[in-house]
Amino acid sequence: MPNKQYRLAARPVGLPKDSDWEFVTEPVRDIGEGEVLVKIYYASLDPAMRGWMNDGKSYIPPVQIGEVMRAGTVGEVIASNNPDFGAGDFVSGTLGIQQYGISTGRDLTKIDPDLSLIENYLGGLGMPGLTAYFGLLDVGAVKEGDTVLVSGAAGAVGSLVGQIARIKGARAVGIAGGSAKCAYVVDDLGFDACVDYKSETFLKDLKEPLKTGVDVYFDNVGGEILDIALARLNRHARVVICGAISQYNNTKPVRGPQNYMNLLVQHARMEGFVVFDYAKRYAEGVKELAEWHAEGKLKFKTHMEAGIENFPAILLKLFSGENFGKLVLKVRED
Amino acid sequence: MPNKQYRLAARPVGLPKDSDWEFVTEPVRDIGEGEVLVKIYYASLDPAMRGWMNDGKSYIPPVQIGEVMRAGTVGEVIASNNPDFGAGDFVSGTLGIQQYGISTGRDLTKIDPDLSLIENYLGGLGMPGLTAYFGLLDVGAVKEGDTVLVSGAAGAVGSLVGQIARIKGARAVGIAGGSAKCAYVVDDLGFDACVDYKSETFLKDLKEPLKTGVDVYFDNVGGEILDIALARLNRHARVVICGAISQYNNTKPVRGPQNYMNLLVQHARMEGFVVFDYAKRYAEGVKELAEWHAEGKLKFKTHMEAGIENFPAILLKLFSGENFGKLVLKVRED
Repeated sequence: MPNKQYRLAARPVGLPKDSDWEFVTEPVRDIGEGEVLVKIYYASLDPAMRGWMNDGKSYIPPVQIGEVMRAGTVGEVIASNNPDFGAGDFVSGTLGIQQYGISTGRDLTKIDPDLSLIENYLGGLGMPGLTAYFGLLDVGAVKEGDTVLVSGAAGAVGSLVGQIARIKGARAVGIAGGSAKCAYVVDDLGFDACVDYKSETFLKDLKEPLKTGVDVYFDNVGGEILDIALARLNRHARVVICGAISQYNNTKPVRGPQNYMNLLVQHARMEGFVVFDYAKRYAEGVKELAEWHAEGKLKFKTHMEAGIENFPAILLKLFSGENFGKLVLKVRED
Repeated sequence: MPNKQYRLAARPVGLPKDSDWEFVTEPVRDIGEGEVLVKIYYASLDPAMRGWMNDGKSYIPPVQIGEVMRAGTVGEVIASNNPDFGAGDFVSGTLGIQQYGISTGRDLTKIDPDLSLIENYLGGLGMPGLTAYFGLLDVGAVKEGDTVLVSGAAGAVGSLVGQIARIKGARAVGIAGGSAKCAYVVDDLGFDACVDYKSETFLKDLKEPLKTGVDVYFDNVGGEILDIALARLNRHARVVICGAISQYNNTKPVRGPQNYMNLLVQHARMEGFVVFDYAKRYAEGVKELAEWHAEGKLKFKTHMEAGIENFPAILLKLFSGENFGKLVLKVRED
């Protein structure tokens, strides 16, 4: 049984290029004691993957050269030597950019294909959903009447942050790239406003929606937009550092937020987190996210691309902003 | 009765220069209904004064051109039309760089000259003491066994932060400029270690005292040292933004902390504050600080300079690092 895979061939400098990858087809090996064989249907493409490609200490070890590229996946168990999993179970797990994955089962979670489309377990019911949920509610401590500003508002995490803010009685103001994304964020997702950072009138356009300042800024992008948000904080505001996609492919030093001293002026805080910090509370998060989704209060949008062989080019859409919704790779044709 | 004063003549660009000041002598006017006349003995010279000289929105309005320069002071009431204050009362208040001040009494606090030297009410029992107290205990949430790193460790606030950390059962590691200051911080104040940022081996010297990482970083200086601290944070670390003296006289843009993404990696937070946020709890802070001082657990060090006419030059010692202890200006010869 052939298994198509993408392996990391070299550590990228700046944007990953074709020569940083190796496309391999190898036979699936037999599973050993306690192991589970998963037929992978979909892989999640996320900005965090760029960080995993760098060497150095982080919240998770880097992907090694020659290793299958790490990625969240959903699929179906087709063979199991593990009593916790049987053929026909649907699971999510970090099995990487390949068509079959073998796991000890420890990192697999059963998912319910009747509750939702399985690809949603890579999005609104997966890491992006949990990131938005714990980031906004726990780190951001959002409360009724707050103004929540979120960058990457049309993206996998940002789109959920604004919707959850609305569910909690806060105002949601998004920042996204382009008028189509902004229209989607307001018209389809129900944000109170969305401002196009690519527009020449961006700063002027922010004025009206932020006239009462920012209570929570949920940052997915870093760079200049983080500084713009810091300058508009209210007293006791919370800045949630979720990502910094504008800086991930930098070959120059990261741009530090020059306006950080406004934290002092406003007695505000800036706090970072990764969703793995909340692993023990995932079930609680998925349950509430699924309820909101079922009630029609929380919309999920998937940007599906097909063809594992196209992975390198599809990944780049995250950094060019071409994706519209949660970027998911369909890794098989059947 | 002549009153020597320093007034702000121009908004400084970079370090304040002589032409930014006007030295004036004017007669003390008669006090009106409800007013109090205070003979000022000492004025507090603090890094925050540099910020008050800039135009623009901050946590406190800027000093206006032509106004007496704002400063904390201690002195003695010599005339009063206010039933709350009588001649002979010692008080602290923000009466500015002058020899006599007139107040409605609202901003005056009675101080006890028998409890401590009155200049200590500008230091360990004044704003610097309260800044260290609330910044470390409330914002920094220090707990037993933590490693607390503090910059400006020989300064008015930093010297107290490390001592309070020790009182609370934490390890205190200071950063200060020069071997004399570092020796003082360790030998006299009892910090566990102090590292000289002017030394060529600074980064190497930090390794041993920070081998278990940083749980609380109390930042008085900003700039490169903030980045160095951010790189060494432990999980759930707290960065207390108290000041950024390295950046106050910048004519170039402020240097933002490039390593802020380590907040994400370590699920850490960076929070700013100004001591005025805690005005309602000052009495609680002064009481505990005075007790620790009386018990010999908390040492105060004053760097006293005489001569109101020398104010502009003496203020600059804060920015060159020449002061050694809380910088206080004696504003009269008698």
